[in-house]
Amino acid sequence: MRDDSAGAVEAARRPRIAIEALSPTVDAGRFPVKTIVGRPVTVEADIFADGHDMLLADVLWRGPDDQEFRRAPMRLIANDRWRAVLTPEAIGRHEIVVEAWWDEFGTFRRDLTKKREVGLDVSLETEEGLILLEKLASAARPEAARPLVDLILRARDSDVADRVSQLLSRATHEAALRADRRAFASRSDSYPLEVERIQAEFASWYELFPRSESGDPNRHGSFRDVIRRLPMIRDMGFDVLYFPPIHPIGETNRKGRNNTLTPGPADVGSPYAIGSAEGGHDAVHPELGTIEDFRELVAAAAQHGLEIALDFAIQCSPDHPWLKEHPGWFDWRPDGTIKYAENPPKKYQDIVNVDFYAPDAVPGLWQALRDVVLYWVEQGVKTFRVDNPHTKSFAFWEWMIADIRAEHPDVIFLAEAFTRPKVMYRLAKLGYSQSYTYFTWRNHKQEIQEYLTELSTADPKHFFRPHFFVNTPDINPFFLQTSGRAGFLIRAALATTLSGLWGMYNGFELCEAAPLPGKEEYLDSEKYEIRVRNWNQPGNIITEITRLNRIRRENPALQTHLNVRFYNAFDDMVLCFGKPGGSPDGAPLDEMILVLISLDPDFERHATYELPLWEFGLPDHGALAVEDLMRGNRFTLTGKTQSVYFNPREMPFHVWRLTRLQGVA
Amino acid sequence: MRDDSAGAVEAARRPRIAIEALSPTVDAGRFPVKTIVGRPVTVEADIFADGHDMLLADVLWRGPDDQEFRRAPMRLIANDRWRAVLTPEAIGRHEIVVEAWWDEFGTFRRDLTKKREVGLDVSLETEEGLILLEKLASAARPEAARPLVDLILRARDSDVADRVSQLLSRATHEAALRADRRAFASRSDSYPLEVERIQAEFASWYELFPRSESGDPNRHGSFRDVIRRLPMIRDMGFDVLYFPPIHPIGETNRKGRNNTLTPGPADVGSPYAIGSAEGGHDAVHPELGTIEDFRELVAAAAQHGLEIALDFAIQCSPDHPWLKEHPGWFDWRPDGTIKYAENPPKKYQDIVNVDFYAPDAVPGLWQALRDVVLYWVEQGVKTFRVDNPHTKSFAFWEWMIADIRAEHPDVIFLAEAFTRPKVMYRLAKLGYSQSYTYFTWRNHKQEIQEYLTELSTADPKHFFRPHFFVNTPDINPFFLQTSGRAGFLIRAALATTLSGLWGMYNGFELCEAAPLPGKEEYLDSEKYEIRVRNWNQPGNIITEITRLNRIRRENPALQTHLNVRFYNAFDDMVLCFGKPGGSPDGAPLDEMILVLISLDPDFERHATYELPLWEFGLPDHGALAVEDLMRGNRFTLTGKTQSVYFNPREMPFHVWRLTRLQGVA
Repeated sequence: MRDDSAGAVEAARRPRIAIEALSPTVDAGRFPVKTIVGRPVTVEADIFADGHDMLLADVLWRGPDDQEFRRAPMRLIANDRWRAVLTPEAIGRHEIVVEAWWDEFGTFRRDLTKKREVGLDVSLETEEGLILLEKLASAARPEAARPLVDLILRARDSDVADRVSQLLSRATHEAALRADRRAFASRSDSYPLEVERIQAEFASWYELFPRSESGDPNRHGSFRDVIRRLPMIRDMGFDVLYFPPIHPIGETNRKGRNNTLTPGPADVGSPYAIGSAEGGHDAVHPELGTIEDFRELVAAAAQHGLEIALDFAIQCSPDHPWLKEHPGWFDWRPDGTIKYAENPPKKYQDIVNVDFYAPDAVPGLWQALRDVVLYWVEQGVKTFRVDNPHTKSFAFWEWMIADIRAEHPDVIFLAEAFTRPKVMYRLAKLGYSQSYTYFTWRNHKQEIQEYLTELSTADPKHFFRPHFFVNTPDINPFFLQTSGRAGFLIRAALATTLSGLWGMYNGFELCEAAPLPGKEEYLDSEKYEIRVRNWNQPGNIITEITRLNRIRRENPALQTHLNVRFYNAFDDMVLCFGKPGGSPDGAPLDEMILVLISLDPDFERHATYELPLWEFGLPDHGALAVEDLMRGNRFTLTGKTQSVYFNPREMPFHVWRLTRLQGVA
Repeated sequence: MRDDSAGAVEAARRPRIAIEALSPTVDAGRFPVKTIVGRPVTVEADIFADGHDMLLADVLWRGPDDQEFRRAPMRLIANDRWRAVLTPEAIGRHEIVVEAWWDEFGTFRRDLTKKREVGLDVSLETEEGLILLEKLASAARPEAARPLVDLILRARDSDVADRVSQLLSRATHEAALRADRRAFASRSDSYPLEVERIQAEFASWYELFPRSESGDPNRHGSFRDVIRRLPMIRDMGFDVLYFPPIHPIGETNRKGRNNTLTPGPADVGSPYAIGSAEGGHDAVHPELGTIEDFRELVAAAAQHGLEIALDFAIQCSPDHPWLKEHPGWFDWRPDGTIKYAENPPKKYQDIVNVDFYAPDAVPGLWQALRDVVLYWVEQGVKTFRVDNPHTKSFAFWEWMIADIRAEHPDVIFLAEAFTRPKVMYRLAKLGYSQSYTYFTWRNHKQEIQEYLTELSTADPKHFFRPHFFVNTPDINPFFLQTSGRAGFLIRAALATTLSGLWGMYNGFELCEAAPLPGKEEYLDSEKYEIRVRNWNQPGNIITEITRLNRIRRENPALQTHLNVRFYNAFDDMVLCFGKPGGSPDGAPLDEMILVLISLDPDFERHATYELPLWEFGLPDHGALAVEDLMRGNRFTLTGKTQSVYFNPREMPFHVWRLTRLQGVA
């Protein structure tokens, strides 16, 4: 016989109860699950133990300000799966733990009930029940112990039949639960849950270059000019106003118009060439105004219900102060130069990158970059669009975002990473609240359905929030270059109804699409010059965008991508999907937003589709009330098979609110 | 600016490279993946980093006797997924780690190649290349550094064109790889892999009660009697001979024939009522023989190519020595008794259970039980069938099995847990090599297909090895009670061809099925009395079982359940499945075992089915050579749609070896 009692003692201390397959989780708890404040989170786990005794379980959770765990009882669903719902009330990092324990009194109660039912002598069992209650009482707080002690005294004076009744009474069960000593309590690992404000999942973004806002192509726009535009932007229904970098622009290798390498003296350069003698990432380009002007703009925007989002682009013009102050943050070539930046096939001759792992870069560069973000947070900016994060250290993002959010959990980061799917998902796991997506290039029915299904039903639903930009200063989509106005309406309808997050770069509302020939770039791109527009230009789609944004605000079902369900439309150019409101899982719906979009900008379409009566628990001959949210009509549709008409010259989509008919069971 | 450099420094030290979704794993590495020695294990992971530099990766693994990790290079498959194959050469616990690092020279080489192709001046690049090689040389072992140093000296004396050629030569690439400093080397967590001997996945078990082996119902059989039976059992093709408990049997509450509670003086009792004045779990029932006799039997069995499996049943007759020696290992009732065991609805009045968590049970009981297993291992037993493990502490199993296998990695444990699926899977995760299954009650085509698909394609494939027993002393399946001989052939064919592990309890070969009326129990069960049989009884299926076992030995495709693929048979009573041999994943097959089984024991069947020509890369009008392994015929089948005939009075199944036709491309 080996003397190795330590191993057995340690093993016997391990959890007796198996807690497996906790959900939701991301990479087994390595990364947090994301949610928004106030949304119920359903937590499930497989919970079971040896033998046939009954168990009880709680889900425990706590937020950043909670000293103690909160608890919610889990209930057994089926096949050893348990479930509870918790609703986080604060933003910030939470943790979730599942605890299970032996239901000692419940097991006793179950067994006694069975034995009594088959008429066995249970006098010994009642004695065992009282001993169990004594054990519970002796381990319990006095106020929980007292009712049990009273009960034990009473029962000891009773005959067996009375004892059984007392032991099986609801009052005894409740008293025993209050005094429960949680025998063999076993806890799961702790799993992180990141709770963010609603704008992490629902927001409408408008992007503009402040320098274009003067209304005069020969005058550099300023923050004060932007303030004049705020009412118009807010009237269109946007929540977030986002600017490309607002910092001093370098002179060295400055880009000319249309990305040329031969600028004239009047050329303003790309704002992504950050840094000059006038300062770097924490400075404001002098022609835009002062930092005080910027703060004034932030305040004015807030008054209009808009928040300002800035661009965090970790790169330097060769004139950035850091090159002289911190040469050790860069990767110098043998000839004393630094390689300019590339994001194949794009070349950025006016930009050099820092080297996160240069010997002198840790921790100085990492802290300096974090402090740039902190600086702008202190100026009132709570949302950052991050340029090309996939070319910067993953470890940096995880640290920096956690560091910022520990103090400022309302800060939101949007990743502008157009790269391989696993890299994009990784950035989301590392802490990005939102991500640009492949949406901009998804024009066909099948690929849209597949992409949305992946985002809303597979693993990414727990951590990746898709931001559907219809265009950006970098992307003038081929589809829009030839689609005409109908195409802009189609893309706006898709973005606004599929995702809680959508965005447009200005000009989209004017159906601008003139390209650099053969490229997905805009002709005379604002990245390299000041552009002035006529916002009342005929053929604009401001009315439609305004209506779409209003529908989004008024219908929570449209404030997330997670609830999308695709339905049959018997036309490969017609997309049909529904977004239910907040019914409990699996229950028949009372209301749904139904969206029908023709993807064809050129021709009229008549399509047959299936009205999802079954989602309301209705038979195939049932009927629903329809409110056409774009056109304002109300009507009734009867029967599952329906047909619908789309006119690209008018509005090639429908957004309907479906509800049960009044007065119909 | 906050002074918190420690956080950034720590973050910068974290792995730069993302290694995600490593497979295979069980519960994110909490439990080992299982395999058998000599079988290739395909390891995959998502591996990627920031930026556009190239990466390299190895899978590292080591077994119990390896001081250092072994390495195999991984290669990029697609979409950031990397793969390598390793083949464990030893049994025991292994660990697997994935390591990835910056391919510094490969990246340089790729970029230089591209620039040269477009005709750029690359003199600065060649200088950078030489500096990189210097860095590699200075960090490398002398024998790896020397070729690089030579190359650098040579290149410095060359013009740019020659330098480029030298830098891009295969020799330089190979020398750089040998001197690689593995920049930014990042490692995954370590994942456990349990490697077992082949019998963990492939074995044919025969179960008998030694006390029935005398050939005389009035004489208690002995180990010596069993020795006489070994040739017959081995001739049938079995590998493992398994006995119910062989220990002294208690007198108190001894069971009489047919599970009655009123035994006569001659009744032998249930061998599961372990322990009497003559000893407990480490003693032999005196009428079976001595421990020397047992060792002799083990040796004789080994000579016949059979190994002995014992039953490890953690329970005690009330006469077990432990009740007096270790009263603290039991849960006593207020009246000084111990509750008898139950496994609802079964009652075991002759048995009491130990209490793993009684205050005195840790560590004494845990060690004593482990030492029981060790004792029998020392007598030459390497396989244990464990009775009702689901009613004993999970933590005990995990500790005990690991403890035994650390010293004796050839020991195999079979879990006899007929309970909820997650509990059965948990026991497998905790260390059981094999598990009884629901097979015994799966008689319909759809349920068989669904169950095998779950076992061979879902998570359980990594840790749960199904042992298909056609009957046990506890289970006289309802199907066999009425099916007649054809049903026995059907069940034997299913068990022997679907799983690498199958077993039968004796009497099955004689088509015994007389039940206790209305129950899945045998009439006059051997659990409670000595039974003597005529092994030459007419109508037996010994010939068929012998042939099936031989086919299993001769065809590795039949030695596992993991390779099963179901095909279309257009008859709900006909099962059609294939088991390919060892072709690489996805490659067309050269050989396959095809099995067709009628599940109808009563009527002839003619069924149409699809010959899986496509698995061989053949068109629908292709042809295959067929060898009928049961009947010995050889023929050719041409075309995908085929029909087949089953005769329950003869043999209602077919086991064919399909091969390509000779001389056909």
